[in-house]
Order: sequence, then C-alpha cells, then structure tokens
Amino acid sequence: MTNQGYQSPQVDVAALTRVLDGPYAEVRQTVRDGLVKHAGLLDEALELDRAAYRQRVLEVVLEMAEAGHTGLGFPKEYGGGGDIGASIAAFETLGLGDLSVMTKVGVQFGLFGGAILHLGSKVHHDAYLDDLISGRLLGCFAMTETGHGSNVQALGTEARYDVKTGEFVIHTPDDAARKDYIGNAALHARAAVVFAQLVIDGESEGVHAFVVPLRDEEGATLPGVRIEDCGPKIGLNGVDNGRIWFDNVRVPRTALLNRYADVSETGEYSSAIENRGRRFFTTLGTLVQGRVSVGGAGINASKVAITIAVKYALQRRQFAATDPDTEELLLDYGMHQRRLFPLLARTYALHFAQEVLAADLHRVSSNPDAADDERRALESRAAGTKALGTWHASETIQECREACGGAGYLSANRFDALRADTDVFTTFEGDNHVLLQLVAKGLLTDYSSEFEDLDQFGMMRFVAGVAVETVIERTNVHKLLERIRDVLPGGDDAWDADAGLLDPDYHLMMLRWREEHMLAGVARRLKRGMDDGMNPGEVFSRCQDHVIGAARAHVERLVLEAFVDKIATLEDGPNKAALNLLCDLYALSVIEGDRAWWMEHGRLTTQRAKAITAEIGSLCRKLRPIADDLVDALGVPPELRRTEMLDG
Amino acid sequence: MTNQGYQSPQVDVAALTRVLDGPYAEVRQTVRDGLVKHAGLLDEALELDRAAYRQRVLEVVLEMAEAGHTGLGFPKEYGGGGDIGASIAAFETLGLGDLSVMTKVGVQFGLFGGAILHLGSKVHHDAYLDDLISGRLLGCFAMTETGHGSNVQALGTEARYDVKTGEFVIHTPDDAARKDYIGNAALHARAAVVFAQLVIDGESEGVHAFVVPLRDEEGATLPGVRIEDCGPKIGLNGVDNGRIWFDNVRVPRTALLNRYADVSETGEYSSAIENRGRRFFTTLGTLVQGRVSVGGAGINASKVAITIAVKYALQRRQFAATDPDTEELLLDYGMHQRRLFPLLARTYALHFAQEVLAADLHRVSSNPDAADDERRALESRAAGTKALGTWHASETIQECREACGGAGYLSANRFDALRADTDVFTTFEGDNHVLLQLVAKGLLTDYSSEFEDLDQFGMMRFVAGVAVETVIERTNVHKLLERIRDVLPGGDDAWDADAGLLDPDYHLMMLRWREEHMLAGVARRLKRGMDDGMNPGEVFSRCQDHVIGAARAHVERLVLEAFVDKIATLEDGPNKAALNLLCDLYALSVIEGDRAWWMEHGRLTTQRAKAITAEIGSLCRKLRPIADDLVDALGVPPELRRTEMLDG
Repeated sequence: MTNQGYQSPQVDVAALTRVLDGPYAEVRQTVRDGLVKHAGLLDEALELDRAAYRQRVLEVVLEMAEAGHTGLGFPKEYGGGGDIGASIAAFETLGLGDLSVMTKVGVQFGLFGGAILHLGSKVHHDAYLDDLISGRLLGCFAMTETGHGSNVQALGTEARYDVKTGEFVIHTPDDAARKDYIGNAALHARAAVVFAQLVIDGESEGVHAFVVPLRDEEGATLPGVRIEDCGPKIGLNGVDNGRIWFDNVRVPRTALLNRYADVSETGEYSSAIENRGRRFFTTLGTLVQGRVSVGGAGINASKVAITIAVKYALQRRQFAATDPDTEELLLDYGMHQRRLFPLLARTYALHFAQEVLAADLHRVSSNPDAADDERRALESRAAGTKALGTWHASETIQECREACGGAGYLSANRFDALRADTDVFTTFEGDNHVLLQLVAKGLLTDYSSEFEDLDQFGMMRFVAGVAVETVIERTNVHKLLERIRDVLPGGDDAWDADAGLLDPDYHLMMLRWREEHMLAGVARRLKRGMDDGMNPGEVFSRCQDHVIGAARAHVERLVLEAFVDKIATLEDGPNKAALNLLCDLYALSVIEGDRAWWMEHGRLTTQRAKAITAEIGSLCRKLRPIADDLVDALGVPPELRRTEMLDG
Repeated sequence: MTNQGYQSPQVDVAALTRVLDGPYAEVRQTVRDGLVKHAGLLDEALELDRAAYRQRVLEVVLEMAEAGHTGLGFPKEYGGGGDIGASIAAFETLGLGDLSVMTKVGVQFGLFGGAILHLGSKVHHDAYLDDLISGRLLGCFAMTETGHGSNVQALGTEARYDVKTGEFVIHTPDDAARKDYIGNAALHARAAVVFAQLVIDGESEGVHAFVVPLRDEEGATLPGVRIEDCGPKIGLNGVDNGRIWFDNVRVPRTALLNRYADVSETGEYSSAIENRGRRFFTTLGTLVQGRVSVGGAGINASKVAITIAVKYALQRRQFAATDPDTEELLLDYGMHQRRLFPLLARTYALHFAQEVLAADLHRVSSNPDAADDERRALESRAAGTKALGTWHASETIQECREACGGAGYLSANRFDALRADTDVFTTFEGDNHVLLQLVAKGLLTDYSSEFEDLDQFGMMRFVAGVAVETVIERTNVHKLLERIRDVLPGGDDAWDADAGLLDPDYHLMMLRWREEHMLAGVARRLKRGMDDGMNPGEVFSRCQDHVIGAARAHVERLVLEAFVDKIATLEDGPNKAALNLLCDLYALSVIEGDRAWWMEHGRLTTQRAKAITAEIGSLCRKLRPIADDLVDALGVPPELRRTEMLDG
C-alpha cells in the first residue's frame, strides 16, 4: 500500500529518540525508569477502591520525592535541583505513567510548592521549602471556587486584616466562594496556599495568596476549617480533591506570601508594583509553570495512546482486501492511516513546540531581570500550547481507543485511564477557551502597557474598542491589510501556483497569513461593533469564536515553526527525512482542516485544496512502512503500554 | 444578546414534548417513570464495587422485565407485547437512565432474545421465549471473537455435525476464535446463541447460530465451556462481559436456529435461500434491531448531556461582560452558544430521523412479505443512523462536559457515566466506519441483486470495478454528471444566489447534490484504479475515506429530510417556529462543517460561505431565549439530571 517507486527512509530509532529527548535526555530516562519500576500501579489502579488507590498514589509520590524526581525546579539550598528545565522534562515524562501520580506531583511541587517559591519571600522559603520538597509537608493550592474559576479576580474568599491582633482572618462568605476541586485537600494536605481578597479597613486590595494550615500532625481538620471530599470523578481518582470552607480562620500577618505586596503591622498596604492590574497579573504569572507542565503531560499521554493504536493496527487483521486468503492488517487501510498518522504527526509537532516553550520557561524563570514583554510572551505561549496540547490529548486518545474497537474499551489496555485522567486537562489550569482568549488579547493589544491596568471588564471594553485604532495601526497589520487589498481581487491563482505543496516555506506562509488576517479581521469587527454603539460585552460575545480562532491560528503557526526549526538543526539523513514527512503531514493537515477559510479568503484555489487532500493520502502511504519505528522512537517503555491484545 | 427587533417564539413545552414523543408517548412515559423510580441507581453506581453494581443492574433489569417494559417486541402468545415500534421506543428511552441497565436489556431481550425469535423456528420459540421474556432464562449473544469482529464471515468457532450421534460439536480452535466482549457471559448467562462455522463432512456451510447451554441452574459452568471475565472496562461496568472458549461441546441437532437453514439427521444441509451470500446477509439482518436500538439510546443519552449543560450555563456566571457589576451567564457568550446550540439542533434532528427509522423497522419487521429491497433499505438506514447517532453522543457528551468545567468532571453530575458508557456505542453493534462502508456499498450497487452473492473480498472487487459501469449509468447519477458539467465552469455565483439561506429547499438541494456528486466521484475513482490495473483492495484502501464520506453525506441528507418532513406535518405556531430555527441551524451547521467541499465543487461562493457562518451566529442568538424550554421539551426527568452544581 505504499507509493509506487518510493522508498521510505530507514529510521534509526535510538537516534530519533535522542532527538526527541533533547537536552534533558538523562532526566527523562531516569523518570521513565522510575515509571517502569512503578508500572504495577497501572494494574492496581483498575481494581483498588478509591481510598486504597489514593493511598498508593501518595506512596508512589513520596517515593519519587525521595528519589529526587520531583524537586528539580527548587533552589539547591533547600534540597532542590536548581534547574527549571529539568523539572519540566521530568514532569512531562510522568505523563507516560499513572496520571494521578503526575497530578499529585503537580499539585504538591508545582502549585503548592511553586506558589510558596514564587510568591513568598525568604521567610516562607526557610519555613516550608525543605519540608515540602521532601514531602514531609503536603499542601494544596486553593484558588478555584465553586462559583469562580477562570475569573480569579472575582474570588469570594476574604482575608481581612485585623490590626488589633496583627492577623488575617480567612473567611468563606457563601457557598459560591467555597474552594472547590482542590487537589490534595480531601485527605493529605496539611496546609493550603489560599487565594483571597485582601481586605483592609473594609477595602479590598485585590487577590493575594496566604499560607493557611488545614490539618494537625494527625490529619485532623483544624478549628474553623471544614473540608468535604469531592467524591468520585471522571478520572484522576488517585488524587483526593476536596472543597474547603473557612469560618473566620486566623493566621499571622506573615502568612501573606509577600514577594509582590505586603501589609505592615499597622495595616499599611505596600507593593513594589504600583499598578493594581499589573500586580494581579504578576501574581497569576506563577501559574505559567503549571500550564507548561500540563500541556507537556498531555502531549506525553498522547504518545502512549498513539503507540498502542499503531501497534494494535500492526497485529489486528480484518477482511480480505488485497489478498483473498489473508485478512488485511488494519494499518494497511487508507482510512485507518488517515485516522492515526495525522495525529502521530501532530504529536511530534507538539513535542517540539513544547521543547521550545520549556526552554523559554527555563530562560525566563532563571533570569530575575527578564523583561516584562518576555514574560508575557512566555505566558501567552504557555497558555496556547497548553490549550492545543491538551485538546490534542483528548482527541488522540479518543480516536486511538475507537481505532482499537472492543480491545480499546477494556481498561487493561490503558485507554480508559488515559482518556478519563487527561479529560480534565482541557479545563483545569485554565479553561482552554479562556486561555486562547488570553492569547488573543495579548496579540490584539500587542502587549501594550495599558493591558496591565485593566480588570476583565475593562479589558473587554479595551479589546472591543479603545485600542482598536492602535491595533489597526500596528505596522505589520497595517501593511498586511494593504497587501490583502492589493492581492485579493482576482489574485487567487497566481499567489500560490508556484509554491511546492511540500515546501515548508509555503506552509509557514499560509499559517502566518491566516494568523495576521484573522487578527486584523477581529480588530475590525470589534471596532465596527463599537462604532455602531453596541455594548462592548455584546460586541465581544459576537466575535468570540473569531477571537478564539485567531489565537488558535497563532499557536498553530508557533507549533509549525518549532517543528521546522528543529528539523533545520539536524543533519541530513533518514531520520531527518522521516521527520520531514511528519512535518509535511502536520502542516498539510492543518491547512486541510481549515481549508475553507483559506478558500474564503482567496488564498487557496479549489484545485490546490484538492491536491492537498491527495498529498495527505500520499504522505500517509509513505509513512506506513516506518510507522512502527516512529512510535517506538517516542520512547514509551513497553511496560507502560499494557496492550492486552490478541496474545492476552 | 438577542438579535435586535427579533422576538423568539413562545414555546409550549408540554406540546413540544408530545411532538417528540410521537406515537409511543405512553410507552415512553411509562419507561421514564420506571427510570425515575430506579434513579437511585445512578448514585449507587458511583460507589458500588463492580460485583455489587452488576448485581444491582441485574435486579433492575429483572424488575423491568416483570413490569413489562422489556418484552414489548415479542409475540403476545409468549407473553410479549407484539409491537416492535413500542419496544424500540421503550429501549431508546432507557438511554436516559443508567446505561448498563439499557445494555443488559439489549443483550438479553434484543440480541439473545432477538436471535432466537428471528433465527429460530417454533420449536425454539416454544422452548425459550417464555422464559427469556420473563428473565428466568438469561442468555448472551456470542458472535464477536477476539480476532474477528466486523468480519463475521471469518469467525473461527466451529460447529461440526457428528452424524453418528446427531449432534453438533462446538469448538474454539484457537485464541483468536474465543468469543470476546460478550455481555452477560461473565456471570449471568445460562445459555448463549453462538455464531459458528457450520461444518459437515469437513466442508463449511458458512456461519450459523446455535443455542448452547453455558451454565447449570446453580450458575456453574458446564463441561467443555471455559469463561473468563473481561474485567474492568471504560464504562458499562454493570454489565458482565466475558470471553468464552468451547472445547468440543456437544449440543443436539435442534440447537441450530433453523429458520433459514437446517441439517437433517443424516447430515443433509438445506436452506430455502439458495444463494450462500444472501443467506449470510439474511442471518445478519437480525442485527438491524440492535443497531436501531443503540443509535436511539445514543441520541437519548445526548439529550441528558445537552440538558445538563444548558441548565448549568443558565446558572453559572463568569467575568463581567455586558455589565460591570454582574458577571455574565455562560450561555450569553457567543462561543458558548456556538458550542452547545448546534449540538442541541442535531439532537432534535437525529431524534426525528430515528423516529422515521423506528417506523420503518416496525413496518418491515411486522410484515413477513416485505420486499428484499425494503429490508436492505432499512438495514442501510439503520447502519447509517447508528453511526451518526452514536458519534453524536460521544461528541455532545464530551463538549457538554467541557462546557461545565470542573463541575462537569465530578461523577455526581452524570457526564462521567454518560461518556464512559456511550463510548463503546461507536464501535459495538458494528464499528461505525464499517457500517458507513456498508451504507456506501448499498448505494454504489444500487441494491443490485449481485450484492447478495458476494463475500467481503468479492464485494470489494465488485465495488472497485465490475459494477462501476452500472453505477455510472444509474439514471440520476448520469444526469447529475451532465448537469455538473453544464454548471461548473463559471457558474459559481448563479447557482445559489437566489435561494434564501433559511430555505429548507436550499438546504435539501445542497445535501442531495453533495451526496450524488460524492457517490459518482467515488465510482469514478474506483473505476480508474481498476482500469490502471491496481489491486482492487489497494484501490479500495485509497478511496476508503471518500467512500465513507459519501455514506455520511447520504445519512446527513436522510436526517435533514426527516426533520423537514416532521415540521411539515405540524400546524403553524410558536412550536413550529422554534423547530424551524433548530432545523435551519442543523442544516447550516452541516453545510458550514463541510463548506470546503461545496466550495471545491463550485456549489458555494466564498461570500455565501461567510454568510452562512454569520447566519449561524444569528440563529444562536435567536435560540438563546428559548434554550431552556427547548431542553425541557426533550423530556429528561429532573431526577435523572443529577446536576450537583452551585447549590450542591
């Protein structure tokens, strides 16, 4: 079923794995070895009840902490590894194993530990880091409330400063303000970083973070703290999520994580960041590492799924097709290739995009003097990659499960846990749609300084009107609009007739053009709505899918660039040739998926659109002979594949 | 957020529910009442271990059997209701409740009972129907094998006739031929209908069905029968799926379900259906009721999901948008409407398509003299509706879960069970892709009588070549091809400029044209491949996505026709107006989703494509004020919604 006369490249699997593993190959291998050691947990999880599963996950997390896999991102002086990049590589790799373990690691070391590290000052580091890195102090990250998720600024929990006693009084005013879905809260956390409105003299200074003890050494809930178990969830049932209510719980003034703002004994509020909006977004900036981690974990979970599905399709036969006496392997069916190979290609593409993002995070986080716009670019890239990486996980795991039929439905074959556990990735650590809006806002405002000064309502108004002129005047957009006007009428065929379908410059040009054009289009629509006197919220609501589409186009372009750039660093040879096939397939699949848009905007002739569809079929046939090697190179240890197929 | 000056129709919810409930309103209400009575099972299922959950599901199934909900399709003389249509309506409605109950009902009464009813003769009816309708005899349907799923003709299990003893010897030659994923097998079934190659004197007569005892009265496995539990699954864990091996198990000659073929004492094989292929497909025809049932259940499960998601979006607020002091309801965001309303519209559309299908099934099944082509049209429609209905369930439930964020991830809110349980619908009772191929083959061969004579390999060869001339000459396709030639060059604008975007005739014309054109295109590609001397299997593999696309286009057209036809029967008024909004949204969403195709084929200008996107936004805003009524009309009892939202 290959293309006549075409010889697929002979992949060097080990070398390709080294390319994928990148600079942190050793860390990744160490974590993979750790996962293999704990591979039995994948089976246990199928039969343990919830309480026992949670206990086992806790044990594995503590063992990993002891082995040093989980503290790589903390400063060496507190027993950490002092290497953010290594910590991300380690965490991502946990995505190949039991995802409750990964999530509990993320809660303890990424969110709880990360908040204390990034929002706290030396006094907090000295007090907590040693214990939390070793796992002696387990904690949780109490941000989300039942009625307040993505809109963190609207949190209802209060931290009122009592000047008489020099304490903060943490309080839950109503059920909408109870902390909800908080990992580690139902059982294991002894402390929480609580996000609450800091109130002084009845005035709110906005959301700040406080360290609040939840349980005593024996695990009994402290006075004024009420905790309820969230109960069974779609997945991640090895993590104890809970709800927390605070009834006027008093904590000392030093409980405020005061890196960016502080309250004096007499109740004076002070902050090095004068602008309130900017202060808020700086505080939220600590979320970036969590987003990078979750996206990476989703991409790694996809590797497990695509590996299982390709290997199943290489042993399962159905219907005689080319030969009357032998049934055909599933992977020799064109439709099966069409279902799996674009997902394999996107898994590779996202892996390399994630590598760029992790390197950005490492660079920015390791540099206290990093410029604001660099931080914001990182936050935007983290938000976008998290959205695409986690949606990719959901889609890939689901398609792979269906491609394995009844065998895929059995829990023993891992799709059960993979899909159930990763499902929440699309909505936690920032709902994907909200994250893409964040990306779009950044693009529309061109990281204008006014951005920081705005609450959400103001932001919407800003996006929807005030800044539109600025946006339109942004040089490249302005030029672009001119170019569009020049080229559009009748220019349909000329534009792309010369470019080869497999030319990465053509792919990049298509994706860049779409991004800029969508962005400019959104800006114009928003402006028109405002000019017509519509309510800015309504203007935004009407353009929302367009806004999100523009952001998605932006991130897809970043992903393609990462893949193309990576390949450019490699020496010529069969592995590079194989990656080029995958990169072409990724790019053409993106274009095919949104080809209507390019046609609507005169950037794609109908003939060429059809040619792209045909080329994708051809690329699939070229990939068929090396598909097994390409999934092997992803580096999923056989012990984690759990493929109970024909051979039982 | 509604369109200015537009007044949405005032929906009469009760009357709209009556329209949806149709001719079997009373049956549906009775089953809904039964589900409400057993609503506690939805909570129990979250905490019971697998063994206890299976036991509870069994109890509920037996109670329902006693209440007469499950035997409506069997003849009255054996204690049934004598009404296929009622039995489908009842079964579909079970889709609102615990889906393990529904599946176990389907296995016992639809598959096991259905096989004995349809493939057996009076001796089998007399022996089994009474007991199986009452639930005294539990059974299973042992068709699928580990290595043989959709390709039933290749089953490996043997039933060798031993002329010396007048017995059949049922045997599993290897592990690929073990029966697998068989519902009711692991624990409760005392008998199985086993599909096996009937072998006489070393010659196979093809696949036939046999009643084989599995367990004694105490539930102990009988000699020669080995059964293994399939263990935990993604969902449906209230159903005991198992694997079965037969080691030369002897059953009397009368164990053969002999409606279509028989073996005499001396080993003479006889059948009223002379043609072997046709005999096989007639036997498989008994699967049609199962497919109708599963599709209907998927559509009903979607109703639960969309109801929960819309109601959540009507209470949950996030970010200030139109008003700086109040956060906006989720459902007032354009993107949220865009995510949910097209799914709501498709739920309605599929409901009415399912109504047509169920009526067809009732008519054909109640008429022993129904013509062959009528049966085949039914099978094709059942296959196609099952595929679209179950994919719709997967997509809708997933989107609704994500639209409810963290709350959607909690098992208490039903998305967990809904998505896990329905997930297998896309691959059981016929893998959806294989089913759509079946639809396409039927269309390509125009129900030619040669169809029946072909095994799968022959069929592929047939589709890929021999019959292409016939297909091309089919009058309407031929005319169509001419019309395409006439219209295509430059005719882009003229074709659709006059039709209103909300004109159902325009929608129907678009969908019909796509179907015919895709079909003709597939036929031409297949023929070209054969003319080029390619292996027919390879030709098929390369066109497979096109083949499946054509079938999908066909079924989407049937769905739209069903919706349009239903509305035409209603009196003018607000409910009709509301249904028209939904029907327009369904049709335009289909066109938008595949608009690239119409553009590529010169049937849609880019301007009009953009206008369709804008019109969908407008329709969503028109539906917004009546969304709550429209989900209420779907008739999901509040007790089954289990929305643990803000109010805990």
